[in-house]
Amino acid sequence: MKTPNQIAAEVLTTLRNKRPLILNLTNNVVQSITANMLLAVGGVPVMLTHSEEIRDLLHICANGMLVNVGTLNEQQAHTMKTAVRDAAKAGVPWVLDPVAVGLLKFRTEVCNELLSTPPAMIRGNASEIIALAGAQGALCRGVESAADSAAALPAAQALARKTGAAVLVTGETDYITDGARTITCTNGHEIMTRVTGVGCAMGALCAACVASADTAFDAAVATAAILGLAGERAAATCPHPGTFAAALLDELDKLTPQALQNDARLTEAP
Amino acid sequence: MKTPNQIAAEVLTTLRNKRPLILNLTNNVVQSITANMLLAVGGVPVMLTHSEEIRDLLHICANGMLVNVGTLNEQQAHTMKTAVRDAAKAGVPWVLDPVAVGLLKFRTEVCNELLSTPPAMIRGNASEIIALAGAQGALCRGVESAADSAAALPAAQALARKTGAAVLVTGETDYITDGARTITCTNGHEIMTRVTGVGCAMGALCAACVASADTAFDAAVATAAILGLAGERAAATCPHPGTFAAALLDELDKLTPQALQNDARLTEAP
Amino acid sequence: MKTPNQIAAEVLTTLRNKRPLILNLTNNVVQSITANMLLAVGGVPVMLTHSEEIRDLLHICANGMLVNVGTLNEQQAHTMKTAVRDAAKAGVPWVLDPVAVGLLKFRTEVCNELLSTPPAMIRGNASEIIALAGAQGALCRGVESAADSAAALPAAQALARKTGAAVLVTGETDYITDGARTITCTNGHEIMTRVTGVGCAMGALCAACVASADTAFDAAVATAAILGLAGERAAATCPHPGTFAAALLDELDKLTPQALQNDARLTEAP
Repeated sequence: MKTPNQIAAEVLTTLRNKRPLILNLTNNVVQSITANMLLAVGGVPVMLTHSEEIRDLLHICANGMLVNVGTLNEQQAHTMKTAVRDAAKAGVPWVLDPVAVGLLKFRTEVCNELLSTPPAMIRGNASEIIALAGAQGALCRGVESAADSAAALPAAQALARKTGAAVLVTGETDYITDGARTITCTNGHEIMTRVTGVGCAMGALCAACVASADTAFDAAVATAAILGLAGERAAATCPHPGTFAAALLDELDKLTPQALQNDARLTEAP
Repeated sequence: MKTPNQIAAEVLTTLRNKRPLILNLTNNVVQSITANMLLAVGGVPVMLTHSEEIRDLLHICANGMLVNVGTLNEQQAHTMKTAVRDAAKAGVPWVLDPVAVGLLKFRTEVCNELLSTPPAMIRGNASEIIALAGAQGALCRGVESAADSAAALPAAQALARKTGAAVLVTGETDYITDGARTITCTNGHEIMTRVTGVGCAMGALCAACVASADTAFDAAVATAAILGLAGERAAATCPHPGTFAAALLDELDKLTPQALQNDARLTEAP
Repeated sequence: MKTPNQIAAEVLTTLRNKRPLILNLTNNVVQSITANMLLAVGGVPVMLTHSEEIRDLLHICANGMLVNVGTLNEQQAHTMKTAVRDAAKAGVPWVLDPVAVGLLKFRTEVCNELLSTPPAMIRGNASEIIALAGAQGALCRGVESAADSAAALPAAQALARKTGAAVLVTGETDYITDGARTITCTNGHEIMTRVTGVGCAMGALCAACVASADTAFDAAVATAAILGLAGERAAATCPHPGTFAAALLDELDKLTPQALQNDARLTEAP
């Protein structure tokens, strides 16, 4: 059986060879960093807004899709609902990033409706995962989580079992679960939360890894380690957010499977 | 009585402790730098586009709101008109950045309508402030001001008295007035005008300072000094716009109240 | 007769003196880098979304306009169709960047309709130019070209003759043609394709150069050399994409007409 570090290394190897094309339906703030993080890690980003074009691309060449509800409006909600159904028909796996779900009513309803088409993965902070699982829990403050990621593990496991998706709860420690098995990742650095879009772009990396892995669970393990390790390496030389953002892209570009094998801090939970 | 430098230092201290959550209704070009400048200085940015979600956030946890009309369309104008009324009901102070007002008719009408709900602060270049005050004056060339900031001082004072808002006129010298008292700030560097969004993101810093100050006038004084001092420090080592943009975020992160106390160039006008 | 390097140097000199104001109707992902590349090279960027404001600006002070269909929706398509007609009435030259044309049906129809108002220049990769010329050819994979730029030269020449526009086919070698004369440019570096928006922002540089040149053909020659030379200089010190993006803006700012005279690799095709 493969170790978690082997899984992460193999997913990155496949991603670099396959160069998956990821369709991103994401918020207005993070379009550029999402595309740049995908390019840096080895993927190909595409952003579209027109439902017919989305459907066409899903059938022609998309390998994965991200849906992020950060700046949701009525029109985009409609586009996303159509897109996840089209992705299912085209056999393209999709990832949900339920930004600020539980805090704001409109997006909470939309996310619940989106889940009627099963995603391959759900990525969120503790508050979002707790809210999406329908559990009682602390609401987030804006897009920040008010809860610790460990506190969301039972909700994450329940959400994984309910939806069939791998669930990635991000925080100081990341938790990855498919409802049965759980792995933690302690790579990363606090400064990653002080550059807008690093978390949202992580959803796009999830989609790129899903397109490059045997299972969505393996993809979530790899995503947490890839971004966490690149982030801590960038923070080691660039402790302030402006130069850190550029260094993070450089480190994603430089990251090797061997580095993941050696330095990922992934642990199977008992 | 506090000196202007003391005011600026105290506002930054409060901002760092309070971490105000700022809702930004801003243009398409500057979403990312707006969020990153807020994060760097110590605030929490949120961007939303759906009127109900905006209303909900204003009542739950927003500490300030920015309205910037840079890429205004009919839908966004409607959202902004609703948002400023909801902000007033929720007791959340809002800041108006009337980009290119006076040059383009549609936004000029919208800004005048927005002003029926009094903002805490108005930030603009000389041409915009002159136009918004309803005075005759030089029109701006695109988003650049054709007038010197000093030439806009009488219009700024009249606008402050008419609206009750603090007015911040940006230029080589910044002028801050509440209609009675006026302070100038000479911190800053020309290269700040050669990175897109620095001026627009300043409006978000205004909102973060309003949420952290005793008066909007104090907040405007602090904003001018914070951004100006960070900007001139970044320019000292990075004289070209790409690396300057990253350095500006680093300097906002590094800036201390003590640095403002020592190096802000704020002067009470006679 | 001027050499191609002289042409490039003279266009940059004029651009720096004139500071052309460029109106950009472009996609959601690249708004910021488009504005920043224009500012770095010496232009003045404006982004608008409201048709009346676009019409007003075209008549007041715009020197050129970019139309880029990267994230096209119904509303934006309508705005663009109106804008190109208004640009023609106002005598403002416009540049078409037909992102992913040929791959996606909706934008292909819109681009063909836009061409009923002749653009000054068309910039695309090989697949896009082949598709827009109506020729049989390889479809692009997402926004990447599946065809070599040389393979698109006959289509580019046909498209130039049909539309009257200068055509710039970008790739490892750039081809510039007006249907009669052809010049190649071999400046540039592969890493430019790994930062989102460099290609799209090139369309804005095209518009700034059109506003600063005797002919659109001269403008295309200058654009290819300006961006290619700045890119290869940035890549020489910054081989990874995060720091490269900042260095590219710095090099555009530092680039002199003399550098183009000396180091542009422009060759008249036989």
